[in-house]
Amino acid sequence: MAIGSECVLIGDDIPDRAMSDESRSGRNKPGILLRPRTSEAVSEALRICARHGRTVVPQGGMTGLAGGACPRAQDVALSLDAFSGVENIDPVSMTMTVRAGTILQDAQKAAEDCGLMLPIDLGARGSCQIGGVVATNAGGIRVLRYGMTRENLLGLEVVLADGTIISDLGGMIKNNTGYDIAKLFAGSEGTLGVITRAVIRLRPLPMARQTALCALNGFDDVMQLLHHARQDLPGLSAFELMWGDYFDLLQDLEGVLMKPAPAFAVIIELETMDRETGDADFEAFLARMFEENILADALVAQSSRESARFWAVREGDKIYEAMPHLINLDISISLNQMERFVTECKQAITARFRNVRALFYGHAGDGNLHIALDIPDSGDSQLIHDVETCIYDKVREMRGSISAEHGIGTLKRDYLSYSRSPSEIALMRQIKQALDPSGLMNPGKVL
Amino acid sequence: MAIGSECVLIGDDIPDRAMSDESRSGRNKPGILLRPRTSEAVSEALRICARHGRTVVPQGGMTGLAGGACPRAQDVALSLDAFSGVENIDPVSMTMTVRAGTILQDAQKAAEDCGLMLPIDLGARGSCQIGGVVATNAGGIRVLRYGMTRENLLGLEVVLADGTIISDLGGMIKNNTGYDIAKLFAGSEGTLGVITRAVIRLRPLPMARQTALCALNGFDDVMQLLHHARQDLPGLSAFELMWGDYFDLLQDLEGVLMKPAPAFAVIIELETMDRETGDADFEAFLARMFEENILADALVAQSSRESARFWAVREGDKIYEAMPHLINLDISISLNQMERFVTECKQAITARFRNVRALFYGHAGDGNLHIALDIPDSGDSQLIHDVETCIYDKVREMRGSISAEHGIGTLKRDYLSYSRSPSEIALMRQIKQALDPSGLMNPGKVL
Ligand SMILES: Cc1cc2nc3c(=O)[nH]c(=O)nc-3n(C[C@H](O)[C@H](O)[C@H](O)COP(=O)(O)OP(=O)(O)OC[C@H]3O[C@@H](n4cnc5c(N)ncnc54)[C@H](O)[C@@H]3O)c2cc1C
Ligand SMILES: Cc1cc2nc3c(=O)[nH]c(=O)nc-3n(C[C@H](O)[C@H](O)[C@H](O)COP(=O)(O)OP(=O)(O)OC[C@H]3O[C@@H](n4cnc5c(N)ncnc54)[C@H](O)[C@@H]3O)c2cc1C
Repeated sequence: MAIGSECVLIGDDIPDRAMSDESRSGRNKPGILLRPRTSEAVSEALRICARHGRTVVPQGGMTGLAGGACPRAQDVALSLDAFSGVENIDPVSMTMTVRAGTILQDAQKAAEDCGLMLPIDLGARGSCQIGGVVATNAGGIRVLRYGMTRENLLGLEVVLADGTIISDLGGMIKNNTGYDIAKLFAGSEGTLGVITRAVIRLRPLPMARQTALCALNGFDDVMQLLHHARQDLPGLSAFELMWGDYFDLLQDLEGVLMKPAPAFAVIIELETMDRETGDADFEAFLARMFEENILADALVAQSSRESARFWAVREGDKIYEAMPHLINLDISISLNQMERFVTECKQAITARFRNVRALFYGHAGDGNLHIALDIPDSGDSQLIHDVETCIYDKVREMRGSISAEHGIGTLKRDYLSYSRSPSEIALMRQIKQALDPSGLMNPGKVL
Repeated sequence: MAIGSECVLIGDDIPDRAMSDESRSGRNKPGILLRPRTSEAVSEALRICARHGRTVVPQGGMTGLAGGACPRAQDVALSLDAFSGVENIDPVSMTMTVRAGTILQDAQKAAEDCGLMLPIDLGARGSCQIGGVVATNAGGIRVLRYGMTRENLLGLEVVLADGTIISDLGGMIKNNTGYDIAKLFAGSEGTLGVITRAVIRLRPLPMARQTALCALNGFDDVMQLLHHARQDLPGLSAFELMWGDYFDLLQDLEGVLMKPAPAFAVIIELETMDRETGDADFEAFLARMFEENILADALVAQSSRESARFWAVREGDKIYEAMPHLINLDISISLNQMERFVTECKQAITARFRNVRALFYGHAGDGNLHIALDIPDSGDSQLIHDVETCIYDKVREMRGSISAEHGIGTLKRDYLSYSRSPSEIALMRQIKQALDPSGLMNPGKVL
């Protein structure tokens, strides 16, 4: 058999990591864990599962936050981790062909070794895999400049539930020959088939990064700063917003940066091709923002170590120390509504839930907010549900998205209709049914 | 009835333009022409057509080049031209909500009036419509910087064959709540449903454009220039390549720019936020390229009139004067293979077809080439077919795309398998079947 018996694990041989992704919501080991080493082995595995009516859960680096990779006891888990490696980098067309099991950071490194950049980057880079990144259409810290994973995807090889291998690895930037299958699989969270290879677009490697931590007194100033940054800084790659209470909590954990904490803290980062002119342009921009009374204060990072400190606050690396029961939501909301959304959420939570704390921050340049919830009675799943519903109600009211980045998985499935109409959901089901008529791929996820 | 009898045309009331797009391949007036004025009327129209088993051909500005909008005599044509207008521009989120029948240029103008830019631009801007642009996933002259239409699409409202309206007009940049339906409809050429509204991403409006016409002696120099331009010019928006014979023919028609013609001519264009520093940076870049012996010569446009002259040569506005029987192909090929592809095509055509001339040019920065074919015996459809097959054989051999931009329509349908595997085509059919089970939407197109 193509898959090889050494790639089939059962019982105690299945490692605990196959139980759950980073949402920690998985409770079961899968009945079988497959670790195929080729696309053909994936195909054979799916054919065998189909023949026996077994349901399949694709697994990548298990860093997902929506429960999408968590198996039930009766599922076959199919991990791509034994099928890794960068197969090809074309420096002229600036493309990379890479196997699904490749750790994102390894792929980034391979691009850098050729003087190029893989534009997708996120905190989980050291463990998430290309297949998982594509399957969740991951965002991350450079979406403002380069878009989501889907926008950087030029082709895929996938295996359908019946074992058919669909290969579209030409890697062309422009290809209008029918439907874009690769982009349909991006964000499909394992429900349409198994991703085995991807062609990803690379970009010129920036020579320098400029990072500033900005203090602002009001939300209007934040919007002004965003407007000017988009207009004047062609290399703008990040615009990250923190409400003052979030910033202050994290700077207390990470080491103080600005006291008293400003009402709003913003990290601006840009990528430039020349350190000197980049620095000069950035300083001039910040000076203009001071003159126009948009900025109250700003720290410009003088080293990559210093910029890493700004980012550690933004990413909340130590947040569990202050919020041991952290639940992290991930929503999109129109920039026009963002301030009102946060104010109303805070009011509603204070009014309804005594001990729950909600802090707001995120990739504001893209309309994406994270909400860090501290829910002390974390065993109380009804409470968690009520708090989430309270916030998602506001998201629905303001026509936002209940998941900007992390996907639906199992954890947000009950809320899908908050951001998608019944006819959209029906259409998704039709697509799912067309590609996986027996419903074997990652059942119970998303839909 | 919601559609209104004044919106239903038959017989002689149907204008000739409903017969064919710009490919001039359409020979039939449709049985009925519908011009609904609302999405609800589109829905009602499709419901009625479905009830009577009538096939429907969506029509936009009829500027398509693949025959996608050409009806058969038994088809109902459904034109969106009575449903036009920009509905909303959100300057903070930088999005536009626009009706499908809106002429591209009108939408561009509305964005500019708000100090923003709609990044999609192409020669047909004065007549093509947003619906057609989305349905063909149009490329154009700024893909290098902003991507194809699909990459700039944040949401759609579409009507399925059974009349169901699917609305996804939230316009969020980040929305990972299930499959991306809008991006599936992009490039579907009317085969999955009728597009009625779109949300398109806007960008900061550049303050200045710098344009140069560059002369180069060899293809390696072209690749070097591209490499440096991508690396050093963050505002690079176009890198357009012309082989010397194409350039020379067109400059003779438009007014001489460089004699003798160089082996390769390249138009570089960049967008900057400040005329003065933009000019200075560009001059410095070109000076470096001279020093490194990459450039043989360059003309920098001193006015928008002068840059329009460069572009008129590139776009071949007067090409019909020299090639009255012009057939224009539109392919993608890996940059690594591009020179060999052109050399081998020229050789094959010279060897096999006595009077046929083939000239090469295109959006080389994206791997997209146009091939202008002059086929004197243009009544001889077998000859045309043989010449096209000769070129598409090479595209297949080098694993390129037979359509980078214009789509498949009817004209390239027989060649779809040159760029798509049988399993990819089968999967497209499954998707088509799922969304349009009775096969009423634009039958005979693409698949
Ligand atoms: C510290 C941290 C930071 C993060 N930051 C970000 C961020 O900034 N932006 C963001 O968008 N996300 C972020 N995430 C969540 C993000 O979804 C994941 O990090 C990553 O995209 C998932 O990759 P993975 O390989 O771990 O996938 P997994 O967790 O293994 O799987 C995720 C989903 O994809 C499916 N899947 C996995 N591999 C395949 C495959 N080969 N074929 C088909 N389906 C497959 C699974 O079935 C599951 O539904 C973060 C997570 C962590 C822990
Ligand atoms: C001078 C010129 C320059 C061009 N330059 C470029 C270029 O640079 N890049 C490029 O990509 N293309 C270019 N094109 C071709 C391009 O396909 C069209 O200009 C444009 O995208 C089509 O828009 P349209 O409204 O005219 O569509 P039509 O020709 O009317 O239709 C095109 C296809 O879309 C479908 N369609 C139209 N409207 C809808 C709708 N509302 N819902 C569903 N389906 C619909 C039709 O059924 C058909 O299959 C050029 C054409 C010309 C004539």
